[in-house]
Parts: sequence; C-alpha cells; structure tokens
Amino acid sequence: MHIREFQHLIDRMYSQRDRQRGPAKTFLWFAEEVGELASAIARKDNRNTAQEFADVFAWLVTLANVEGVDLEAAVSKYADGCPGCGEMVCRCEEKLT
Amino acid sequence: MHIREFQHLIDRMYSQRDRQRGPAKTFLWFAEEVGELASAIARKDNRNTAQEFADVFAWLVTLANVEGVDLEAAVSKYADGCPGCGEMVCRCEEKLT
Repeated sequence: MHIREFQHLIDRMYSQRDRQRGPAKTFLWFAEEVGELASAIARKDNRNTAQEFADVFAWLVTLANVEGVDLEAAVSKYADGCPGCGEMVCRCEEKLT
Repeated sequence: MHIREFQHLIDRMYSQRDRQRGPAKTFLWFAEEVGELASAIARKDNRNTAQEFADVFAWLVTLANVEGVDLEAAVSKYADGCPGCGEMVCRCEEKLT
C-alpha cells in the first residue's frame, strides 16, 4: 500500500471528527498510542507490538490530515539519501547510541 | 512510495546502528522527534511541520525495523474498515473529542 493511499484511507475513515477535534486534541490521542507502543515494547508482547505500531502510524497520519501535510511528499527528503550526510547508508556521527 | 519500500529504504540507511542501539534507546530518539513535531504544530510553523512529520515517521519505521515489525502488514487491520466499528467511515462513539 502506498503511504498516500493509507493517508487517504484514514482521511475517509476519520477526518470528519478529526478536523472538528483540531490538532492539539488529536495530538493527545496520538501521544496515548505512543505510550501504548512503549508499553508493548517494554513487555516484549510481540503480537500486540505490531498492532501498536499500526495504531501509532494511523494516528500520525490522522494528525497529518488535520495539519494538511502530505506525508508521502514529506518523506521524499529521505529518497536520495540520509538528510544529514546524503549517503544511502548513513555515515553521520550523531545519534550513534 | 509503498510503506514497505520506505521501511526498506530506512532499513538500508540506518539499520546497522539501529540494531546495535536496541529498541529502548531507539525509542528515546523517536520520542525526541515526537516532541519536535509537537513544537512545530504549536508554533504553526508549516514548512517545518511537514519535515517533522517525515522525521517522526522515519523514526517510527526505524523502531519497527529494530522490533522486526512489517508496518505495511500491520496496518492491514485498517484496510477493510475501522478496527473498532468495521465501517469505512468510522461511527465509533469513542475518541470523538
């Protein structure tokens, strides 16, 4: 599935209420899902972890819809290499640990 | 771009160091990007907001690589309708506000 296709799917499914809710309140629900992902990783609950990744991504996309951001266009910054060093296999000296 | 294609791109670009770092420390960098997204939304900094969405998504995908989760497969839970109510246009009574 294309990133843009998933964003359209989530837009169709949830956008009416998302736009009414606005970005700040939508961020709260997104942050709740981030917390649930942290919990699933910490518990090494593998089946639930995959579900929580999906939910975080869905809420991130919802938030992008509210903000009017095209996520597939936005990630083009990674298409030709790491935004930091420009290499396809990153050689940046930061965030190593 | 397919979700899986982006995940492979990020895997190629960053996975060697990601796997050395492990999930807990990788989550810290992901959380930092979530904070930067919150800041960009709060400041209504539209150009930066799109960049921050891309970075949060890239770190989410990095974390999925470390955890061995196929994000495109995981989001199939949304393909046939809202996981809560089963409808293509969600009618759940929760998370309305």
